[in-house]
This record gives sequence, structure tokens and C-alpha cells, in this order.
Amino acid sequence: MAEVRVGVLGGSGFTGGELLRLLALHPRVEVVFATSREYAGRPIHSAHPHLRGFYEGLRYSRIESVDLGSVDVLFNALPHGAGINYTSEAYDRGVTIVDLSADYRLKDASLYESVYGFKHPRPDLLEKAVYALPEIHGEELRGARLAAAPGCNATAAILAAAPLAASGLIDLDMGIVVDVKAGSSEGGSKPSKSNHHSLREGSARPYSPWGHRHAWEARQELSRLAGKPVKLSLVPHAVSMVRGAFASVHGWLVDGKGFNDVARAYASFYSGKRFVRVKPLAPGIPGDPPDVKNVIGSEFAEIGYSVEVEVGRVSGFAAIDNLVRGAAGQGVQAMNLMLGWPEGEGLMIPPLRP
Amino acid sequence: MAEVRVGVLGGSGFTGGELLRLLALHPRVEVVFATSREYAGRPIHSAHPHLRGFYEGLRYSRIESVDLGSVDVLFNALPHGAGINYTSEAYDRGVTIVDLSADYRLKDASLYESVYGFKHPRPDLLEKAVYALPEIHGEELRGARLAAAPGCNATAAILAAAPLAASGLIDLDMGIVVDVKAGSSEGGSKPSKSNHHSLREGSARPYSPWGHRHAWEARQELSRLAGKPVKLSLVPHAVSMVRGAFASVHGWLVDGKGFNDVARAYASFYSGKRFVRVKPLAPGIPGDPPDVKNVIGSEFAEIGYSVEVEVGRVSGFAAIDNLVRGAAGQGVQAMNLMLGWPEGEGLMIPPLRP
Amino acid sequence: MAEVRVGVLGGSGFTGGELLRLLALHPRVEVVFATSREYAGRPIHSAHPHLRGFYEGLRYSRIESVDLGSVDVLFNALPHGAGINYTSEAYDRGVTIVDLSADYRLKDASLYESVYGFKHPRPDLLEKAVYALPEIHGEELRGARLAAAPGCNATAAILAAAPLAASGLIDLDMGIVVDVKAGSSEGGSKPSKSNHHSLREGSARPYSPWGHRHAWEARQELSRLAGKPVKLSLVPHAVSMVRGAFASVHGWLVDGKGFNDVARAYASFYSGKRFVRVKPLAPGIPGDPPDVKNVIGSEFAEIGYSVEVEVGRVSGFAAIDNLVRGAAGQGVQAMNLMLGWPEGEGLMIPPLRP
Amino acid sequence: MAEVRVGVLGGSGFTGGELLRLLALHPRVEVVFATSREYAGRPIHSAHPHLRGFYEGLRYSRIESVDLGSVDVLFNALPHGAGINYTSEAYDRGVTIVDLSADYRLKDASLYESVYGFKHPRPDLLEKAVYALPEIHGEELRGARLAAAPGCNATAAILAAAPLAASGLIDLDMGIVVDVKAGSSEGGSKPSKSNHHSLREGSARPYSPWGHRHAWEARQELSRLAGKPVKLSLVPHAVSMVRGAFASVHGWLVDGKGFNDVARAYASFYSGKRFVRVKPLAPGIPGDPPDVKNVIGSEFAEIGYSVEVEVGRVSGFAAIDNLVRGAAGQGVQAMNLMLGWPEGEGLMIPPLRP
Repeated sequence: MAEVRVGVLGGSGFTGGELLRLLALHPRVEVVFATSREYAGRPIHSAHPHLRGFYEGLRYSRIESVDLGSVDVLFNALPHGAGINYTSEAYDRGVTIVDLSADYRLKDASLYESVYGFKHPRPDLLEKAVYALPEIHGEELRGARLAAAPGCNATAAILAAAPLAASGLIDLDMGIVVDVKAGSSEGGSKPSKSNHHSLREGSARPYSPWGHRHAWEARQELSRLAGKPVKLSLVPHAVSMVRGAFASVHGWLVDGKGFNDVARAYASFYSGKRFVRVKPLAPGIPGDPPDVKNVIGSEFAEIGYSVEVEVGRVSGFAAIDNLVRGAAGQGVQAMNLMLGWPEGEGLMIPPLRP
Repeated sequence: MAEVRVGVLGGSGFTGGELLRLLALHPRVEVVFATSREYAGRPIHSAHPHLRGFYEGLRYSRIESVDLGSVDVLFNALPHGAGINYTSEAYDRGVTIVDLSADYRLKDASLYESVYGFKHPRPDLLEKAVYALPEIHGEELRGARLAAAPGCNATAAILAAAPLAASGLIDLDMGIVVDVKAGSSEGGSKPSKSNHHSLREGSARPYSPWGHRHAWEARQELSRLAGKPVKLSLVPHAVSMVRGAFASVHGWLVDGKGFNDVARAYASFYSGKRFVRVKPLAPGIPGDPPDVKNVIGSEFAEIGYSVEVEVGRVSGFAAIDNLVRGAAGQGVQAMNLMLGWPEGEGLMIPPLRP
Repeated sequence: MAEVRVGVLGGSGFTGGELLRLLALHPRVEVVFATSREYAGRPIHSAHPHLRGFYEGLRYSRIESVDLGSVDVLFNALPHGAGINYTSEAYDRGVTIVDLSADYRLKDASLYESVYGFKHPRPDLLEKAVYALPEIHGEELRGARLAAAPGCNATAAILAAAPLAASGLIDLDMGIVVDVKAGSSEGGSKPSKSNHHSLREGSARPYSPWGHRHAWEARQELSRLAGKPVKLSLVPHAVSMVRGAFASVHGWLVDGKGFNDVARAYASFYSGKRFVRVKPLAPGIPGDPPDVKNVIGSEFAEIGYSVEVEVGRVSGFAAIDNLVRGAAGQGVQAMNLMLGWPEGEGLMIPPLRP
Repeated sequence: MAEVRVGVLGGSGFTGGELLRLLALHPRVEVVFATSREYAGRPIHSAHPHLRGFYEGLRYSRIESVDLGSVDVLFNALPHGAGINYTSEAYDRGVTIVDLSADYRLKDASLYESVYGFKHPRPDLLEKAVYALPEIHGEELRGARLAAAPGCNATAAILAAAPLAASGLIDLDMGIVVDVKAGSSEGGSKPSKSNHHSLREGSARPYSPWGHRHAWEARQELSRLAGKPVKLSLVPHAVSMVRGAFASVHGWLVDGKGFNDVARAYASFYSGKRFVRVKPLAPGIPGDPPDVKNVIGSEFAEIGYSVEVEVGRVSGFAAIDNLVRGAAGQGVQAMNLMLGWPEGEGLMIPPLRP
């Protein structure tokens, strides 16, 4: 018997589908509604043919027709801004909220206008929301009622850079550059010229190279860890894969520091974190590098680091599945923590490879 | 009637095959030999089934059995070090050399031991060799007899960064990070675990993240352009495509400089360069970004640039076909210039898209 | 100086782009107009970024505003039915027509209603049109003024099956099944759920499995070759590649016939055909099979055949590039033949591999 | 607490890795050994980096050093012939055997010499072995001690064709052609020219087109269902995906039969089969076709059927994940049945899409 009742806003896109896939494996929840404008009244497998045989009794609802108070936990998988009135109302009614959009990620309410183009209606909730990156805010999530799951590129960027920012090994005056390689599922399920198979397969190109929204989340979190403002830049690139976000965070070591210092920082920062795999990268150290191929379909993140001794460059790397660790899975992990369940409940699924 | 006789050392790998493809389209040359240990005695299409119908009279030779003096131009498509005795001998006998390996790229002979693991037998030739990036050394190539075609990652890095290095717009003390995304053909035709289709398709991962050989070429050339040593770091990544190298060069603007300065630098640097397409990237400027998809099979390079105003980050981008602009095609362009032919002879082939 | 002036109807889609790519390499033609509703008034590279640097003086025209009589040759790359009034008018005005749509492929006018959903306005032209598969109708094309370039799936099917149909080696009463594997570019450039990269990459699925339009062309041509009606079925499948159509034609040998008979039939049928590569497939015969990978970007077709002795099954295989041999390239080859030029003029381009 | 102890022969290849992935999700088993010559003495994640965090206490053993009698169930994931002495010995010692190779699939022992090149050492076990396709032999599996898991291509072929063979709707004298499209993981983890990413991505080509080993399994099973010998031919094709086997089974309807008869046959045959999704394909019937994309990572099979009315052709289609339903997953399902557990124990995992 499921312990909690769950509702999903925006259940027909890629993130919503991934959330439904993961919740089908979760032993303690029951999905009681999922909304979709396009698929309202139709079964879940009409949008997600791979889920045929799961959720067979459930049909998509219009968002206007669901009773927000009927659930214990509400996930929001709508685009930023589209669900904010529903999540804030549900919050006020006592529902636990896991928001997968950007609606509650930034602490500085004024940024919403410049970065996301809307004036935030509930700055009070920004203070209450926990930025749901479990390796950093795991403790705060316990008992919280509003989780803002990080963006996919931001998740990868922060995971790769956090030990560097927190340890003082990196020269923050030299700036940090985050170079992200992202799969086509990041752009969502709506067909467009940029995700046409013939034009995307075999492609490599930057997008939003003048500044990506997720940079603001990464600055917020890494500055907090560093204890001072971090000059961070983030450039995402569309590459040929379907799933995956790979962040390469490039910076420069402070004088006198080297690979061993970096190694200690990563080992220490991620000690005991079950969903993080730390991989040192240096000549002579055996083992394969972080690779999105190793984490597909799972909550695991592979983290690596390397130093180019000749010039003092240090890089942190993170490979994640953008739809799991970068969205739905991180939301489920947040729910587990918020409800006091084991962190990995329903998430100990080995990645799919090859 | 062909004007010059051409020989190819290492004709059965990916670079050799691409060279043969391009030379088949060149109106002024005749390939009189191509060497291969594995395919000796067999026709060209035994190694390159796509070339069936071309070179039908030609069979691979063992390198020991060819007469180096029988050709006007000798291309070397062997791995570094493997052909150096042959190319140096041929050079001494008066043959024009286009070397696609690293054997003559670095001006500092001492680097060969640390970077490539062999003591360079002919430092005298390093002085004579021209680093064959035509947009930079085009004039020197005219009449030269020894061209060292740049490495694929270095080509992309230098093309992306040259206007920044040459213009003084970038703060060199802040360092330059080159983040490269490379296709599987970069690794050559020999099967290995890292290029197994099941393990490479859908993958994104760094390689040689502690320092890549091509960084040395890029430092050499960009320092020359900048007039002082450039602190440059280069991190290549294996991504899911077959062809293509995409370099993202990240740096920081000197105070008071902005997008318009950068735009002028790129426009000026590449003015009149027929194989370069310059693409400004800023909100409100229409047009698609540089993409390897737009240059496949061709000598064209797409160059873009962008500025993240909030933090002062500037990026230069370059998309090339690693086998053409990053290897065989750049070699043919060098040959054209060395022999006094039109630069684009045999190379004005539109890219293949989609 | 170009010998003939060419116009292109429908120049902004994949087929139109491929035609423009090939015509840029053709030494005897000049493109004087290309039409596009979406891109009217804009340069060619606005639709085809890979063609930047080619056709720089040309901008797309609205179809209503072009003077059909201003060209010697008119190519039609519009969807079926959309260009028929223009091509028929131009034909009447003396222009040579190369139609890449289905508008003139079927000899039986009545089929247009059931198969393509429109009543053919000019049955008289169906008699005049030559079905432009050069290996079969090459002689008829010489001097003709209206060429109907075959469909991509039909081209592959007919090339694979023709020697079997013509030789009497196959038991026609047992039926012929054509199983096609097609790349995503077959579906055109318009974004849709079925060509979304995330949903197409890694996919394999049938489409129109109850009967595909191209089956009618294949029946028409193979029945003509066999001298009696051919019971042919055709099932296309969407697979994960971008370019390419691979047809596997499966039938059953008449009693007493075997591999050697089949080998003779293929060798004889394609003797002297420069754009066809014939590949026997049997244990002990060295060489690689027909592969779309070997013909990308080119007019070449790779044809193979095999016999499963235990049961008497015979298969013919054909690998083509759907946009070249299956569309634009075959149109150019038809033009060459119609104008009395060498068949391969502008088309002797080696395929791109890898 | 695990109920049964499991051993795995051949645990470092793709099939072995997939088996370990699935067994990690199975609540009733504990893997006590896994063998590998190449990785002996090293942890599981040395061969399967995606499994880091699972099986952390386990290291690969040499096959010679494991105690076959220490396990309740032994899986064999070695190539055909390589494990037969071990599995037969373990069987004799009372161990339950799930063999994923071809070693016990064929009932006719004499075929092993001609098809697999070795004389079968234990014809007595061929009689005892159950061909472990659960939709057909599910009842026989209950309580059995030796399961021969079907080959991947055979699984897809039989699932697609079984209702046609069993119902008498197909004219068996006209023959059946099975055309398979297979992903690169079918060829195993050993690097080779044929699975080099650069040469496989974007490729479509036949292999073993003169007769594939899996045809013999399909003939055996379909003939049994039909009650008479089935003239079946099978031609596999390598396509561009990583996972997946898609079988298209083409035949001809007996006179007077049509789509509705076929629909009834499929609905009836697969009624109540939880891992099969049946999809009618006809104009006007909504829904998406069977697609490997819909079953990746799972035991589900998508089955479709269509009729080309004009010629009487009927096709059955099956999409499976070759490593799950075509190998490791079907083995686990067999184990569940053999041990009297619920058929879907540990296997009710939703597929991964996109």
C-alpha cells in the first residue's frame, strides 16, 4: 500500500515522462493525477508509449480540473512560470512541493525579471524553498516542504565545481568557465528545427553562448560555498547524444597547490555520498573517465578532476543523465529526504550501458 | 593531364583515405603510390570501399619499396615519428613535403622528447617547415618545400582564438581555456574499446584532461600572434559524432572592451579568407551558430564569438571537419599554396548537410 | 561560362538543398532561380547554412514571381502535386523538365487518385515522361524533355531487384518482399514528433506497413522487366541514420537455379554501369557488403545478392544515399543524359566515409 | 535475505553485464560468483563502470576456480560451446541452469555440427532443455532445471511470427522471410572493424545474408506451432543503433483471409501475456508502431501486424531490447518460472525513453 499520494503537473513532456517512469519503481508512492493539456483524457501511454503496462488506470487531467489538496506531494514538471500559481497555492494548502522548474531556485527574487522574464509572485516562498542538490543541501531538505530541483546544466556544473569552490584551491579572481555538453532531450519534447534528427545527429554547436540561465543558479550556490562571489561563466553546447549533460569546469589553481590537494578536496567533499562516483584523472592512474554513458537512466553522477601541471589549470568534470539527476530523479531524491525516507528509496537503479 | 605526381605515405587509415578522396577531385595531381603495410598489394578500395571506382589501377605498396624520388609531392599520413625518415630523405632529394603528422609542427626541437617521446632527428628541418594554417601562414607557404599541417584540435583552437590573441582584447594573464569536442574519427581507424560503437555512441567524456599534445602547437602559434607567451590549456572531449572538431576558446576581456571590439577583431582577421565563415553570436543577431554539421566533408571552418557581459567572458568558437580542415584538406590547401596554384584548387566542395 | 540556365522549384528543403549542392559542382549549369515560400527574399544560406560561400548572389524567389521561360532546365523539388501546374506549363513552353516528385512517375494516370489523392491534370505528359532510372531507361532519356526521377525507396528496390525480375530466376508466383531501411532525411526538413532527435536516434520501426506509395513505381518497372505482373510488396522502416536507403529484396529461386545463376544475372545486368558497384555475398567470397556508409553524398549504388541454399531464398540488396541517388543526384544524371552530356558530368564525386 | 545463490559464467561481456544489472534489481537472488578470464581478480566495475556501487564486494573469478556446486542457479553468458562442459557438469550436480548461449536451443543434435561447428557432447540434455521463450514454453519452464534462452534475432522472429504460424492464416508454401535490424551490441563487446563507431554509426548493411544461425531456432519453434515444416529464411542487418533487434516477418495470407483474422490471431495468442504489447497497424487505427525505442532496458516486446491488401502480404513485427528480452532478461524470466516465482519478479522495470 502506497504511503503517499502524488500529483504531477506537466506529465506529458520528457521530464514528466521520466518522473512517471521513476515513480513507477518507487515502493511508497501512488500517482493519483498527471496533467497535460495536449493529452487530457487519454491514457499515460498515449504520450509515453514506453509506459504501456504501467499506470493503466490513469488518464491525463487538465490542470484546471485537478484537486491540488488531494495529494501529499505535488511535482511540477511544467516550464518555468507555467505552474507557479498552482504550486504556491498547493503549498499554502499544506502540500509538499517538489518543483522541477526554475520557479523557486533563485534566492534573489529580482533576478526572475531579468533572467526568466516574469516578476516573481511569491518572494516569500523563495526563502522557504530549499535548492535541492542533495550533496549540498541534503540536511536542509529533511522536513522541508518546498524543494526547488536544480537545472540540469546547473547540477552538473555545481557537482563538478563544488569541491574547488569550497576548498579555496582555485584562484577565484581568475574566473571559472563551465563548458557543458548536452543531449537533445534537454530541449524538451516539442519538435523544432534544432532537434530535427537530420540536423542534430552529428552536430556540435553552442547555444546561449552569451549567458545561460543556469549560470545564475551555479553562481548562487558556488558563491555560497566559496564564501564570496564567484565569477562564473557557463556555455552550453548541443551535441549528438540523446541523454546526458557533461560539465567541464575549468579554473586555475592558487600558487603552490597541486593534484594531490585537489584529490583530497574531492574525496572529502563527496565522502559518503552514495550517488556520486569520484574519479581522479592523471597519467598512470588506471580507470575510465566520467562518462554520461555510465550513468544513463540513473541518479548517479560521475565526477572527475585533473590538473594540467604546465600551466596550473584545474578542471572538474561531471557526467549526469539530464532527465534523472538533472531533473526527475533529483526531485525524487528530494522527496525522499523531505519525507524522512531513505535517500535512495526507489532510486537504486543501475544505469543502462551500453 | 596531371601536372604533378603525388605519393602518399600511410594511405589506408582515415586520414589517408580522406586525402585520397580529396586528391581524386583535384584536377592537377596524379597519385602514383600509396603505402600500407596491412593492405600492401591490394587495391585502394580494399581499405576504402567508398573509393571503389576511383584509383582502379593503383595498389598499395610497402613503404620500403616505393621510390620517393619518383614524385613531386609527398604526403605523410602516418602516425607521428613513423614517417620522419622517409619525409626527411625525400625533402633532401628535392621533393615537396606535406606532412600531416606532428613531425614538423613544433619549432622547439626539445619538445619532441617530452611531448611525443622521440628525439627529433632533424632539427634543421623544423626551421624550414611552415606551420600550414593558411589563414596565418599563407604567405610563407608560397614557394615553401616543407609544410607541417596542424593537428585537428590545434587547428580548431587556433582558428577560434587567433583574433583574440592578435588583437589584445583578451586578458592573457587570466589564461585561455580551450575545450574541444571531437568525433570518433579523430582516434583513427584501428578498433579499440574507446571507439566501439556501443560504448561511444551516446557518450561524452574527456580524454588527456591533464594536457593534450595539440596544446603545444596552439601555444606556439597564439604566443607568436600575441607577441608574448600565452597561458593556454586545452581539454579534448570525446562526443558522439563521427566527424568534426569543435573548439570553444574561453577567456576574459580586458577592461573596457566589449562585443563590438571583438566583432571588429574577427571581421578584420578573417577578411578575405575564403574558407572561413565568421558568425557573431549575440541576442538579437539572426543566424545559426557555428556547427560541425555545416562543414562536413569540406575545408570550410565556421568561426563564432560571443561575450557574456555580466562577467566579461569572451569565447571564440570554431567548427571544422577534423579529417578535412583538421588533416587532409588543410594539407591539400598547403600544397596548392606551395605550388603557386589557386588556394582553393580542388577544394571548393560544398559541405554535406544534413 | 555555363551552358544552360537552371531553375529550381522548392529550393529550401532537403532535396532542394542537395540539388543546389550538386549543381554547385556541375561545370555546365548556372542556377538562375530557386523558389521558397518560407525563405523568399533571403539568401540561399539562410535555409542551407552549409552552402554559405556558394550562390552568394542568389536569393529565394516566390514561385509565382519566377519566369519559367527564362531557364533551359527546370527542376521540381516540391512535394507531389504542388509543382505540377508549373512543370507542365514550363514543358509546354519548351523547357526541359526534371521532376523529383512523384508527379510523372506512374504511367497509369488513374493511380494518382488512389495513391496520391489527386486527379492527374495532364495524363498526356505521363506518356511523354521517362522514368529516370538511368540503368534501365538511360537510352530513352537521351533527348527526352521530361524526366520523372524515381522515389528513393523505389530506386533502391528496383536496383536491387531488377536483375532477378529480368532474368526469370525468381519465382514470381511466390511474391517479392521489399524491406527498406531509411534514414531520417527521407521525411523532409519539417520538424515533427517522428523526426525529433530524441525519439528517432536509436529507433527502429516500420512506417506505412500496409502499403507504401513507392511500391507502385517498383511494380510498374519490375513488371515491365519481367514481362508480366510482379506481385511485389514494400515495407519501409525508419532507422537511426540520417542519410541512406537500404533495400533488401527477398524472393525465392525457381527450381534448379542457384548462386552462380544469380551472379551471372547481376553481372550482366549492371555491366558497364559506372555508378553501380556489384557485390556478391557468399561464404568464402571476400569483401564487404553493400552499405549506405559507402555511398554517402554520392550517386553510387552498391548492389549485393545472396542465396540461402537450405530454403532457396534469394535476396538482392541496394544501398543508396536517398538524397543523391534517391533524388537530386539521379535528377542531375537524368539532365546529363537528356542534354547529351557525359552521364557522370558533375557527379564523379567520391562518397564520404567515415 | 536472498533466497537463492546465483553464479554467472562469462560476466564481463555485454550479456554478462546486462545480467548483472538485472540481478542487482532482483529481490530474491544473490550473485556469489561471476567469471571472466580478462578481468579475473578485479572488481565488477572494472568491466562494467556503470555498475560501480553495486556488487562492491565481488571480484571476477577464473572459471576453473569456481565451485559450480556452491550455487542454486547457474547462468551461462559465454559464447556457444565455451561453457557447455561447465553447465552440463553443474546440471548433473543438481544446479538449475539458465543457458544464454546456443548450447541447448536446438532439439536436433546433428545440427550443432553444421550450424555451430562442434559435435554436441550431451544430446541427452537437449531433450531435457526447455526453449525458454516464456510466451510459448512458459508452462514447461515451471519446475524445469535446464533452460535454453533463445537467441536475440530468433526471439524477435518467433514473437513476430508465432500467431501467424499457429493460426494457419499464412500460406506456408509461399515461404516466410524474416528481415531483422540489429543494434551494435549484438556483436558483443570485443572491438572490431565492424563495430568501430566511425564505420558503424550511420551504417545499414546485411550480415550472414546466406543464412543466419538463429534461423534454425526459428524454424524449429514455428514448425512446431504450425504443425508442419516452415520454410523460413532470416536475414539480419546491422543498423545504426546500439540496442535493439527489430524483426519484420513477411508472408502471404491464404485466400479469403484478411486483417481482421490476423488481428484476432495476435490478440488471442498474446492474451494475458504481461510482457507483450500488441499493436495493430492499419490506416485509421491510431497509435504508434512497435519501436525498439519503446522497450529499451526492459523485458517488454512490442508486436505489430499489418496487411497490404492489394497483394495479400501480411507482416508481423517485433521490437525487443536484444540484451534484455533477447538475452539476459529472458533468462531471468525463465529462472522466475523455473523456481515457481512470479514471472515478472525483478523485471517490472519500465523501459527507458527517450
